Amino acid sequence: MTVNRQILLTENPSGKLAESHFKLSEGTVPTPKDGELLVRTRLISLDAANRAWMQGATYRAAVDAGTVMAGGSVSEVMEAKAPGFAKGDLVFADTGWQDYAAVPAKGAQKLPKMEPLSHLLSVYGIAGLTAYFGLLEVGKPKAGDTVVVSAAAGSVGTIVGQIAKIKGCTVIGIAGGAAKCKMLTDELGFDAAIDYKAEPVGKALRKAAPKGIDVYFDNVGGDILEAVLFGMNNFGRIACCGAVSQYDGAAPAHGPRGIPGLVVVKRLTMQGFIVMDYADRHDAALNELQGWVNSGKIKVKEDIMTGLENTPKALVGLLAGDNVGKRMIKVD
Amino acid sequence: MTVNRQILLTENPSGKLAESHFKLSEGTVPTPKDGELLVRTRLISLDAANRAWMQGATYRAAVDAGTVMAGGSVSEVMEAKAPGFAKGDLVFADTGWQDYAAVPAKGAQKLPKMEPLSHLLSVYGIAGLTAYFGLLEVGKPKAGDTVVVSAAAGSVGTIVGQIAKIKGCTVIGIAGGAAKCKMLTDELGFDAAIDYKAEPVGKALRKAAPKGIDVYFDNVGGDILEAVLFGMNNFGRIACCGAVSQYDGAAPAHGPRGIPGLVVVKRLTMQGFIVMDYADRHDAALNELQGWVNSGKIKVKEDIMTGLENTPKALVGLLAGDNVGKRMIKVD
Repeated sequence: MTVNRQILLTENPSGKLAESHFKLSEGTVPTPKDGELLVRTRLISLDAANRAWMQGATYRAAVDAGTVMAGGSVSEVMEAKAPGFAKGDLVFADTGWQDYAAVPAKGAQKLPKMEPLSHLLSVYGIAGLTAYFGLLEVGKPKAGDTVVVSAAAGSVGTIVGQIAKIKGCTVIGIAGGAAKCKMLTDELGFDAAIDYKAEPVGKALRKAAPKGIDVYFDNVGGDILEAVLFGMNNFGRIACCGAVSQYDGAAPAHGPRGIPGLVVVKRLTMQGFIVMDYADRHDAALNELQGWVNSGKIKVKEDIMTGLENTPKALVGLLAGDNVGKRMIKVD
Repeated sequence: MTVNRQILLTENPSGKLAESHFKLSEGTVPTPKDGELLVRTRLISLDAANRAWMQGATYRAAVDAGTVMAGGSVSEVMEAKAPGFAKGDLVFADTGWQDYAAVPAKGAQKLPKMEPLSHLLSVYGIAGLTAYFGLLEVGKPKAGDTVVVSAAAGSVGTIVGQIAKIKGCTVIGIAGGAAKCKMLTDELGFDAAIDYKAEPVGKALRKAAPKGIDVYFDNVGGDILEAVLFGMNNFGRIACCGAVSQYDGAAPAHGPRGIPGLVVVKRLTMQGFIVMDYADRHDAALNELQGWVNSGKIKVKEDIMTGLENTPKALVGLLAGDNVGKRMIKVD
């Protein structure tokens, strides 16, 4: 326990992110100060938001070139210099991509011990809670509604679609590739899936949603948001969760057509949210999610890669859409 | 009472609307069927929405070339073939631009007699109700909030700003031209006004709204919406009322930048509405508006032109922004 492997972001990319924007480095294991925890990372979460942080300030500070790449992880407490934590505790914290980190205890969230541990990053982590609150609180689906979700085979999308099914909705997923689409319909119970790489989304939506779309859970923005806008029903709700189509490159020159014209005519509501806004209700949501997982109503999709050195590759691949379900790195 | 002057839309414009897209014609006075009213138009309402109707189906059917131009008016009942109406009653109905019309009684709304009659189209008409519900129900301003309204010197904007002042907000109007801006601050009590023809709106907003924008009442869409988006505070609300920048020409190639990225990061809500959605609460709203007008808290701005033959000119001018307050035609 003397070497601390770290992945540094060497350059803030202006275009597409590549593995060459990172380098593996070695630092020392930090000594925690009062109020801090020394933790060892076990599972590092990969999220499209990691890329957005490189573009500048979002709901967190921007990530700077030359420093350890930021990222959340499930970590184990090695030494606690703060009340309420002990050696061996599991926490979720923004440790960054490294073996060891000293993190403020205030920003660390204690986790229950469970098997598999990976569920703490998927269905019981930010992905599951984002799906839960975004769909139910922002999208407000009613039984019989038609719900569309983009990035449907991703960590959030897989759970959004399954919760919408539990609520009695017709569910259409938009994903890239035939294999993902088949998984959505055959394995997760989606009513239909649209392969945006193989067919025009607008036309496919008119076929898959003949009664129009009541709720759209938007993970991607861009052209797909535009296509869905034209298919929305009056009084439809759009839960704006992310804009992954716009993170990996220069800022887009324009937004989707139909804003605000269609928003007015159809009396749509578009609402952005982040999961931290619902922090006081996370426990209740986790209880409900657990019930659905235990009863088999939610199948958990995870995409686990191994080795800290593979974290850049894992993120670059995620942005290209090569993951199915929640992607994470198991640190050796 | 034998000739019925009518303004026909001769062509659905693909670019800018011009007076040459209309022609004055003469028809006969129609005979009302059972369930209809024969009415004589007194005051014709001019609205940016008139232009939107020419683009295709909105919340009403598209307007077709070759027919009498559609439009709402305050009219007087000449003959009633429906229960509940009598000769001499005043109604608001979609009569179109003509002297006489036979309209279904079901679509006619009985109006109180009042002086000036014009208030029935401005503060006590669709404009006032749109301002009331859009600001209070969609924008949800709290005392101390910063509220921005575009097309601020128009029929809706003048009332939005004054209601926001009543609610204890800091109010910034965006309008075209120094005279309108001066009217907003000197006469209507706006805290600031931005002349979008004279200065970049984004920069002016940063100066006028140093604490950021909590509520934006959007009448225009386009570049101004984009500029305001970048100045919104977290959890801000955008009431999408219209997109007048996009009605008078071809459909815009793109929407505003920042959609959906800024909506997510700032957790904004954008919501479209039309005043008919609140029909069951119009009476209560009218009561409150009347109280504010009678106590001088709302000053009513009207822009009344005379002569049916001038209706095309009145609409073309409205789309160019040459009106102050509610524009209408007094039919001779």
